[in-house]
Amino acid sequence: MLKKERPLILVTNDDGIHAPGIGFLISVASEFGDVVVIAPEQGMSGMSHAITIKTPLRYKLLASNGVLMMASVNGTPVDCVKVALRRLLQKKPDLLLSGVNHGSNASVNTIYSGTMAAAFEGAMAGIPSVGFSLVDYDHQAPLEHLRPFLNQIVEETISKGLPKNVCLNVNIPISKNADEIKGIKLCRQALGYWQEAFEERLDPHKQPYFWMSGEFVCLDQGEDTDLQALENHYISLVPMHFDFTAHQQFNHFTNWNTIENQSETTNQHEILQKK
Amino acid sequence: MLKKERPLILVTNDDGIHAPGIGFLISVASEFGDVVVIAPEQGMSGMSHAITIKTPLRYKLLASNGVLMMASVNGTPVDCVKVALRRLLQKKPDLLLSGVNHGSNASVNTIYSGTMAAAFEGAMAGIPSVGFSLVDYDHQAPLEHLRPFLNQIVEETISKGLPKNVCLNVNIPISKNADEIKGIKLCRQALGYWQEAFEERLDPHKQPYFWMSGEFVCLDQGEDTDLQALENHYISLVPMHFDFTAHQQFNHFTNWNTIENQSETTNQHEILQKK
Repeated sequence: MLKKERPLILVTNDDGIHAPGIGFLISVASEFGDVVVIAPEQGMSGMSHAITIKTPLRYKLLASNGVLMMASVNGTPVDCVKVALRRLLQKKPDLLLSGVNHGSNASVNTIYSGTMAAAFEGAMAGIPSVGFSLVDYDHQAPLEHLRPFLNQIVEETISKGLPKNVCLNVNIPISKNADEIKGIKLCRQALGYWQEAFEERLDPHKQPYFWMSGEFVCLDQGEDTDLQALENHYISLVPMHFDFTAHQQFNHFTNWNTIENQSETTNQHEILQKK
Repeated sequence: MLKKERPLILVTNDDGIHAPGIGFLISVASEFGDVVVIAPEQGMSGMSHAITIKTPLRYKLLASNGVLMMASVNGTPVDCVKVALRRLLQKKPDLLLSGVNHGSNASVNTIYSGTMAAAFEGAMAGIPSVGFSLVDYDHQAPLEHLRPFLNQIVEETISKGLPKNVCLNVNIPISKNADEIKGIKLCRQALGYWQEAFEERLDPHKQPYFWMSGEFVCLDQGEDTDLQALENHYISLVPMHFDFTAHQQFNHFTNWNTIENQSETTNQHEILQKK
């Protein structure tokens, strides 16, 4: 009888390779497969889907401590995925796990998130990909009690797969023990935005500089959103795709004189199903 | 009789405030309204929706040369929009124009694009926003013959508005004169990905470093895509939104044991229409 090969799991993040969150995610991943860790040398929060094209990239192979390979990259989370897939790995991973991010990536945070950008990049390469984020910016926040929930999500992702071109955005409410978490809920991304403030200071040369900070404004009272699930002590799970076309809004443009409307449009999922 | 106020137009880009593309876009915008230019001090290609939160931001007011205000910011395109809206402008702009980018932002390029990130950021702030990109990386490529097409798009965006939370991704084929462009087509984002290569070199200290480059792979033969329109010498216009939820894929998860499905989900557009 052939022994079934263990899946190859790529782990990355955006808080940097030394963050507690990725350490925990590596230990979760190790229960399910052979693990390769390729993550940013430094914290890369807010880097979104940025890539490094104007400066050279370097990577360092680090002591692998029980995983197949561990390397840091002087770039963004998306750079890490690209370096992993196109340079360091001999075969395509069976799964990509990103995180656990120290801070929320629910609602519109997704668009600024390096954690989720890595998951999108994995999905673009045809790898089932999951981004995990804890709604707590404290790097010392307890994580161990989250293990059963992460195990469930990883196990179902491996056994049931994900739709093509879809990745998962998983956000976890602040909690101290497993009893405080009611379960896992399938959600949509809540509508909201950040209202930034710029704090002005003077440098020693009396020149002004600004720190950007902000407050999140929720515009969405829906019961089916990630924010609502988190508020009710559920883990939110949002399937996400990278077709940004606003398909449902095409009819707005039928009265534009200057454009030719397509007779009909399809979406990427239909295209894939036809293949 | 009251004189109708000219619209306030915010112009930004990701190639930096000195790129020819933004100069051309400023001249287009000036025909339609009062123009404020807030753009990155340096080229910011590939910065996607990155924001600057770990280092301070600074801006410089520059000679305004016939526009209301011109300022450069030591940050990303999204930083520029945030600095404009939350710091420099007294009132919300009526329109945001980003570009003209030197290089394609069709298909999956959108996700890496600083040009489109600025447009998304504008849409999130409730401003009708359009990103323009020319499928030509040459900063010396001719632009003047594109004026009538940009005029048409700006005029219809002002007169007819855009759906809430929707921005436009406009890509323009390589051309030398207006006759080579057949028109403007409403499209969806084509499915594709970048297959990167890492070119290894040795620095003077014999340490390896890597330049990332890549080739685009199209996975989509649809007739209704932006890539198809460009190939047929049309300008492509893709309405885009920032709800990344893969609404059509929710049924995939009905057989996941560990998650609670929502009884029904709505989308952000429906939420807005109910308001």
